[in-house]
Amino acid sequence: MTIPSPANALYAGNRTTLADYRAQHFGWSVEAQVATITLNRPERKNPLTFESYAELRDLFRRLAYATDVKTIVIHGAGGNFCSGGDVHDIIAPLIALPMPELLMFTRMTGDLVKAMRHCPQPIVAAVDGICAGAGAILAMASDLRLGTARSQLAFLFTRVGLAGCDMGACAILPRIIGQGRAAELLFTGRSASGDEGHAWGFYNRLCDPDTLLADAQQLAKDLAAGPTFAHGITKKMLHQEWSMSIDEAIESEAQAQAICMATRDFDRAYRAFAAKTRPVFEGD
Amino acid sequence: MTIPSPANALYAGNRTTLADYRAQHFGWSVEAQVATITLNRPERKNPLTFESYAELRDLFRRLAYATDVKTIVIHGAGGNFCSGGDVHDIIAPLIALPMPELLMFTRMTGDLVKAMRHCPQPIVAAVDGICAGAGAILAMASDLRLGTARSQLAFLFTRVGLAGCDMGACAILPRIIGQGRAAELLFTGRSASGDEGHAWGFYNRLCDPDTLLADAQQLAKDLAAGPTFAHGITKKMLHQEWSMSIDEAIESEAQAQAICMATRDFDRAYRAFAAKTRPVFEGD
Amino acid sequence: MTIPSPANALYAGNRTTLADYRAQHFGWSVEAQVATITLNRPERKNPLTFESYAELRDLFRRLAYATDVKTIVIHGAGGNFCSGGDVHDIIAPLIALPMPELLMFTRMTGDLVKAMRHCPQPIVAAVDGICAGAGAILAMASDLRLGTARSQLAFLFTRVGLAGCDMGACAILPRIIGQGRAAELLFTGRSASGDEGHAWGFYNRLCDPDTLLADAQQLAKDLAAGPTFAHGITKKMLHQEWSMSIDEAIESEAQAQAICMATRDFDRAYRAFAAKTRPVFEGD
Repeated sequence: MTIPSPANALYAGNRTTLADYRAQHFGWSVEAQVATITLNRPERKNPLTFESYAELRDLFRRLAYATDVKTIVIHGAGGNFCSGGDVHDIIAPLIALPMPELLMFTRMTGDLVKAMRHCPQPIVAAVDGICAGAGAILAMASDLRLGTARSQLAFLFTRVGLAGCDMGACAILPRIIGQGRAAELLFTGRSASGDEGHAWGFYNRLCDPDTLLADAQQLAKDLAAGPTFAHGITKKMLHQEWSMSIDEAIESEAQAQAICMATRDFDRAYRAFAAKTRPVFEGD
Repeated sequence: MTIPSPANALYAGNRTTLADYRAQHFGWSVEAQVATITLNRPERKNPLTFESYAELRDLFRRLAYATDVKTIVIHGAGGNFCSGGDVHDIIAPLIALPMPELLMFTRMTGDLVKAMRHCPQPIVAAVDGICAGAGAILAMASDLRLGTARSQLAFLFTRVGLAGCDMGACAILPRIIGQGRAAELLFTGRSASGDEGHAWGFYNRLCDPDTLLADAQQLAKDLAAGPTFAHGITKKMLHQEWSMSIDEAIESEAQAQAICMATRDFDRAYRAFAAKTRPVFEGD
Repeated sequence: MTIPSPANALYAGNRTTLADYRAQHFGWSVEAQVATITLNRPERKNPLTFESYAELRDLFRRLAYATDVKTIVIHGAGGNFCSGGDVHDIIAPLIALPMPELLMFTRMTGDLVKAMRHCPQPIVAAVDGICAGAGAILAMASDLRLGTARSQLAFLFTRVGLAGCDMGACAILPRIIGQGRAAELLFTGRSASGDEGHAWGFYNRLCDPDTLLADAQQLAKDLAAGPTFAHGITKKMLHQEWSMSIDEAIESEAQAQAICMATRDFDRAYRAFAAKTRPVFEGD
């Protein structure tokens, strides 16, 4: 997709491309408008560090302006998703930090979740093996989740003496799996199996570990072939209506859907239907 | 039930009867204070049109004042619930409309959901076969839902280039089936089977297609024989507390339940209990 | 745990002990910092009375300041949890009360739920047999719930002519089991079985009736051995973020977790990890 003329100041400040982005602290590739983020320190089960948190936050913020990425897959290398914040690289230094810097850290991690929720691309988490602590949060903060029978989901914060309220977990997790199950996971830190996570609605489905990444990428590819501007509106409204009243939400949706009815993709869909063909969406 | 004297201005402006209502764009019947709405263009799987949307909206608004309808069943003729907005009758003209009229349309459809949520009668959706697009919304906006093994629930908006945020779906659907499952249905437009819908809490139970309507009407009849003023308060508070804090909700319920304790039905229930008989509720 | 010096005015006004509390209207015992509340009128299936409501409310309020109770188990004697508000002791007098006193009653019962949600201790409900009316509310208002195959959960208010909006049920129950299932229980008053309650996320797990109380106490003991200050923050944030936007919730969690990172328990956990031992948390 090229930037349409006039390539004026509006476009310049609001469009970027990320296919050639060179990630420093995780794997990054883009194919057919689907980006894949690979947490790739498999020898330690892909922990996060100060550096990878910050780079993920900055990247998800830039994704809001990317014209060449329509959906995102996030997964871990070597049969595990992510073991969370590294004990040596993160917890050790935190012990010694003064309060303003502790808050600087918790805001940075929270800003990563905010950036994941604010970018318009649907995010598909492919969760195999260990999915713990901040890793569990990354999965939770995604839009869709595919698991495996051996996925182990654990909100471990309590095990290191902390509260379950990390990066939005006390708000978001209950809305995915229910308040009672979320309370159990957050208070006890216990692992939920793949089957439990699926039955509870955390995983949208369970896949074979061998095909998990490909399955997630296929789902992401299917979504990227859809009306991606409208997908971005769906994602925004799921976020926006979180704490609205029903009446407010309905008015907000009336406005948001009217915007979508003025897009070319809506017109394309109708013309394809009338011509008995499949619509080819272009995201505008 | 007759209007009590004095039939003064208060009653006149706030009471109506609908047993004799003659619907133009769907079936309507009232028996034993249970109204049945039948979407009845079975040859096209009961799609909605501009006219049926508007008539449903107006009817649900009038139901707020109806003294002779205590619960409502909504179902479709011919083995399907509703295929949603008609492609020819609705989508084709929308393509050509200017923005103010697009918003006029999306507000009209949203106003139907608002009217369904604001009338005091519990609404039971009897969902067999196709339940798609705006049809899925009608089921979602009901209070209780009975399905069948062959129910196919699909929020198809994405297939026509639109967003999932239609008539309150991004607010209401996640609270019924969980945020992750709702996101999947809204982003992908895929069908959920009857079994899935039941396991997820969308359907309260699955019925035999042959008895579905009768089962829904029996449930509605049972509710109509209950304390219908209190039912209206239950429905109102489920709506009203949607985005309140817990403390605010508890105070609101203290007030709302105190109102119910001042009704005659509360007194009737106690007297029946003391007399070891079944209470006969009258809805006042 | 002793009150640290200086035992100044701050401590005096904010700390109390409850191990020696003598309950008037239910059983009370404290062992290893786990309190057990026993509803103990088994011949009537442990109904609540004006007096037990008020004493429970006052006790849960005092628990906010208790230094010797870290978690709470609530259960019923004789194979049933609680049959709710006593028909003779509560409903009969309510029939005759003027409105301000009705509101005084509904506020008292609501204040019990508020007090349960505001004390920092996680509450584990052990639910066997009948769990009805206000008893169902006590289970709902707990943090974690263990059931049995023979648990019978019923929100009976509609059977006595009242609305389902009692003590926060229209706000809290939908977030635990989903809006559609909650609507069914509140409108119909029907019983949900142990299996249903487990599948729906109301019970965290089902136990053998013979071991239920011991299982609940073990869970409570495990939590009491954890970082109890952080548990109190987890509970507070689950409450506090109920109707926040996602962005507000994330900022609130950044602040709340930064507080926990400044506790000694966080330090203890890290030191234990570095020493390859199990952390011994002290709740400060």
